[in-house]
Amino acid sequence: MNAVEMGHGSGGTLMEELIQRIRSVFSSSYLDQGLDSAILPPVDGKLAFTTDSFVVRPLFFPGGDIGKLAVCGTVNDLSVVGATARYLSSSLILEEGLPLETLDRVISSMAAAAREAGVEIVTGDTKVVEKGHGDGVFITTAGLGSIREGIDLSGALLSPGDVLIVSGSLGDHAMTILGLRESLGFASALTSDCAPLNGMIKALLDSKAEPLFMRDITRGGLAAVLCELAALRAAALEVEEDALPLRDEVRALGELLGIDPLSMANEGKILVAVRESRADAALAALRAHRYGRDARAIGRVVALGAEGVRMRTSSGGMRRVTRPYAEKLPRIC
Amino acid sequence: MNAVEMGHGSGGTLMEELIQRIRSVFSSSYLDQGLDSAILPPVDGKLAFTTDSFVVRPLFFPGGDIGKLAVCGTVNDLSVVGATARYLSSSLILEEGLPLETLDRVISSMAAAAREAGVEIVTGDTKVVEKGHGDGVFITTAGLGSIREGIDLSGALLSPGDVLIVSGSLGDHAMTILGLRESLGFASALTSDCAPLNGMIKALLDSKAEPLFMRDITRGGLAAVLCELAALRAAALEVEEDALPLRDEVRALGELLGIDPLSMANEGKILVAVRESRADAALAALRAHRYGRDARAIGRVVALGAEGVRMRTSSGGMRRVTRPYAEKLPRIC
Repeated sequence: MNAVEMGHGSGGTLMEELIQRIRSVFSSSYLDQGLDSAILPPVDGKLAFTTDSFVVRPLFFPGGDIGKLAVCGTVNDLSVVGATARYLSSSLILEEGLPLETLDRVISSMAAAAREAGVEIVTGDTKVVEKGHGDGVFITTAGLGSIREGIDLSGALLSPGDVLIVSGSLGDHAMTILGLRESLGFASALTSDCAPLNGMIKALLDSKAEPLFMRDITRGGLAAVLCELAALRAAALEVEEDALPLRDEVRALGELLGIDPLSMANEGKILVAVRESRADAALAALRAHRYGRDARAIGRVVALGAEGVRMRTSSGGMRRVTRPYAEKLPRIC
Repeated sequence: MNAVEMGHGSGGTLMEELIQRIRSVFSSSYLDQGLDSAILPPVDGKLAFTTDSFVVRPLFFPGGDIGKLAVCGTVNDLSVVGATARYLSSSLILEEGLPLETLDRVISSMAAAAREAGVEIVTGDTKVVEKGHGDGVFITTAGLGSIREGIDLSGALLSPGDVLIVSGSLGDHAMTILGLRESLGFASALTSDCAPLNGMIKALLDSKAEPLFMRDITRGGLAAVLCELAALRAAALEVEEDALPLRDEVRALGELLGIDPLSMANEGKILVAVRESRADAALAALRAHRYGRDARAIGRVVALGAEGVRMRTSSGGMRRVTRPYAEKLPRIC
């Protein structure tokens, strides 16, 4: 038995063996309850609840894999609304024929990412589909967190003059995946930025930065997040092209493939908006953390009442930033 | 635009359109927050948290579809641990080429099932995979519920003499799906039992039945649930073959295909254990509900300290009941 069989999803002894294998890696007293739902202790205050499916291809890449991504993505979605990530669920859709060794690598990576993030995988499910009806492994995580009192990261308090900060270099994840798929040798220097950002975000919230808005920069890239914020608050935003933190390899690969860095997906970066007077505190808090070392102010809120995003280009012109229609990077996460 | 395209999963405007389409069907103020996580009001007491992926084939069947199944399955997993189901997440993995009309039917069915169950779909995600790398639509739901005070459905209080009750006929879901796949005409009288059981379970908990253990009977069938209970509490259980509620069509199809009714999956049935003195109250409470009309006592706990399940057969013999190794029904849910 070296590969996933249809019987692994059938509710019998074979499935039970697979589930025990997964449980022993995730190692949680809640999973060991053996109930249809994990029973968790009371949580004070408001709750944050989120979910994401992960279908990234290939399953393994420099800097991470689908398992790490599935944990980090959900931890980050909880963190950017000001929640302390606590519990995760993990549901796997396995394709018949998947080597069990591959599955072991993926779930071990999930367990390691959960340990780093300080969250517990407390409930799960496993299904199997026939060869040719899935693609190795798809993972869906859901996450549960508790919200800090008195925090509002919705952008409701945004004002003209507020500063926009990104926590580090853009596009590392997207260009790593794409370089790998296209077998572009020079892209091998690239590493995905996939990381659990809850520690960095906690440091930011604990600092004097008083962030007004926070969002992780994933599918759709910075352009999508900026356009969302602009739409959410009818805000006019302006960013500086020269201020965007971009690795040389990312810039080069983007030019080669015709992909705008503004639309490249990341898996370990956030956009933060703060008052101008708090920008230094925010940058200091981010840069003190390993995942925020390259944090940089990239622009500001210029007005309220008229939605729009523009970018002052390197050549001194002004360009309108729009949400991409359909980017060229399928299955990036 | 009549079918799902890769761009629907790419983070751009096309994806935003799809998400708006789904949001308008699910219709929740939490989804409208437009944040990376839903922010929910505080929940008193312990929490129940669960997840399941759904890969049933075909997507539509008499009595339900993958959308209804995804909502009911998670509502039921919350309900059987004594939780009040409150919030669901929904994450979709769509295959390129899926007709948008099909997607609309599936999500409308999810919304209808959620309305019946009185739960709200508050957060979600959508991914797209290339044609031939998925199978129409896979759905993963996670669920969050609050646990009633003073309820213990773990079976910890089980004693010899306790009565085992099933809430209705066994195997309807499995045999409906299989009859459909095998195009067996006479199976067309069958309907899946797929249903949200939270109302029925609430009625049971509100009655004088004082249930000691509860589990929904899904993959692996009654045999799996009985063996789990036996293992969990080192209990010897005995059931009567003649007492098992089975529709004639299910019995006939099972015999034709060589499938043991004990291992057939259901999507709207539970096993309940109660004190003998409470059995009548439990049966009355279940039978008063539309989903429990055919509830029946099927056996009892005969001893503690030695795990095992046996069945007194119609012919008067005694047969050992074991968990199936790998049943013949892939992708039943």
